[in-house]
Amino acid sequence: MSRPRFVSFTRNGTPGYGLLADQGVVDLSGRHGKRWRTLREVIEAGALVSLAEESAGLPADFPVTDIRYEIPIPAPEKIICVGVNFPDRNEEYKDGQAAPSNPSLFIRFPRSFTGHEQALLRPPESPQLDYEGEIVIVIGKGGRRILQSEALDHIAAISLCNEGTIRDWVRHAKFNVTQGKNFDRTGSIGPWLIPYTDESQLGDVKLETRVNGEVRQQDRTSRMIFSFRKIINYISTFTTLVPGDVIVTGTPTGAGARFEPPIWLKPGDVVEVEAEGIGILRNTIADEA
Amino acid sequence: MSRPRFVSFTRNGTPGYGLLADQGVVDLSGRHGKRWRTLREVIEAGALVSLAEESAGLPADFPVTDIRYEIPIPAPEKIICVGVNFPDRNEEYKDGQAAPSNPSLFIRFPRSFTGHEQALLRPPESPQLDYEGEIVIVIGKGGRRILQSEALDHIAAISLCNEGTIRDWVRHAKFNVTQGKNFDRTGSIGPWLIPYTDESQLGDVKLETRVNGEVRQQDRTSRMIFSFRKIINYISTFTTLVPGDVIVTGTPTGAGARFEPPIWLKPGDVVEVEAEGIGILRNTIADEA
Repeated sequence: MSRPRFVSFTRNGTPGYGLLADQGVVDLSGRHGKRWRTLREVIEAGALVSLAEESAGLPADFPVTDIRYEIPIPAPEKIICVGVNFPDRNEEYKDGQAAPSNPSLFIRFPRSFTGHEQALLRPPESPQLDYEGEIVIVIGKGGRRILQSEALDHIAAISLCNEGTIRDWVRHAKFNVTQGKNFDRTGSIGPWLIPYTDESQLGDVKLETRVNGEVRQQDRTSRMIFSFRKIINYISTFTTLVPGDVIVTGTPTGAGARFEPPIWLKPGDVVEVEAEGIGILRNTIADEA
Repeated sequence: MSRPRFVSFTRNGTPGYGLLADQGVVDLSGRHGKRWRTLREVIEAGALVSLAEESAGLPADFPVTDIRYEIPIPAPEKIICVGVNFPDRNEEYKDGQAAPSNPSLFIRFPRSFTGHEQALLRPPESPQLDYEGEIVIVIGKGGRRILQSEALDHIAAISLCNEGTIRDWVRHAKFNVTQGKNFDRTGSIGPWLIPYTDESQLGDVKLETRVNGEVRQQDRTSRMIFSFRKIINYISTFTTLVPGDVIVTGTPTGAGARFEPPIWLKPGDVVEVEAEGIGILRNTIADEA
């Protein structure tokens, strides 16, 4: 049986959440919305797996074409992104520095993302919109100073991210990538959440990014510089992780900035981020209106 | 007449908000909490100034000793901090770079802050807890690509921040200061919000930081490298500002890292951040339990 796929969506202007079934969407917010307003609250209640089990086999309430996909956790307390986490990415920085001993981290606001099948927006300030395909983990059980040996027990679900970046604005100021990583709707998260139940879902997963069908990034999670365990342990050293927190775990080499000359995304392009066992996150590109 | 001072607090374990009066706290959450659950919602409604006016002269409902000060906007959508915004601060970086043409920005989570009169926590991971006194602006009217000429109209209130930093963790990884700026409860915001009504409240304000009564930082907002207008304009170029967003606008030279050898904060120290027309934000230091 295929893995349950939890989606957050807007339908007729109203936010909701549900499960994808063969024939469409099983509306869980209609059934459980008073108890749990969002998937974040389902996760806080530790109810993701049991909700999937009790909902299995329910008929679809409406077709997928009725919904607009939203980012799976609409308002997480935190979205923390890991930079430089695959081989060769460190070399892309061309600064002569050795591989780092701790992960670089930056923060994105939810409004810098859109959902599956929505357009990423190229702003008028820069043509340098670039893709970065990444795997997302969503925290289920919160904690501080979480041991590496226990870290995976704190994951509720996994998903994908196109961590879209305005490349020249990443180095716009003296330090920090904040601005180039936070243009409204330049990235995406989704298409859905897959409940995390087994280490095999993360241990050696192929991650691939395609632009108009052409493979641009491809690597395996077994080659990550900082493991999922290490990332959770390191982040929770300084901040308390809480249910629904989103961690974006780093991208393989091969972003558009890697090419000579660089190849930026342009209106009409289609970007797909795919990982085994999770799915395909697909977005088009459009100029910001 | 003195300026109205809006506080967010916890009293007997329950969150609330109010106005400071001579004899204590006027409880506004008790009167208006159904309409506006937090000061963020008061600001969203554009009601801060009118609420101050209609509440003037009300008797205090309880003494100040009854409350625990919390950060004035308990859950803002964003807290964005400006780095390197006063003369000599750029030199402190000792990297030979010229003054930057755009502000450096980083993001802090609300849980990295505590309120007025609470202890800042020194974590076991590092002795390098440092202070940074700063002025805070809180967004009233949201917007994107806000013109500098209109930027000040988007400010609802002003406050203070001790943007406490774990100095060695600021350079822990290849790039970004995220981790050194986000240890739980290492900084503070407060003591209160002063409604912003007039440019003279920001134009040439003396900002001073004292440790155990000794002046460590002192400068004037008229000497900021990036003005309040420029900061709002620049940030809103990439992200949509919304009511309640908090912008921490940069610190003068003289942090503990500036001394040879550096002087870090230690348990028992008292740090005060003071600005003319806003007040004094006071915090002690304690080791994390």
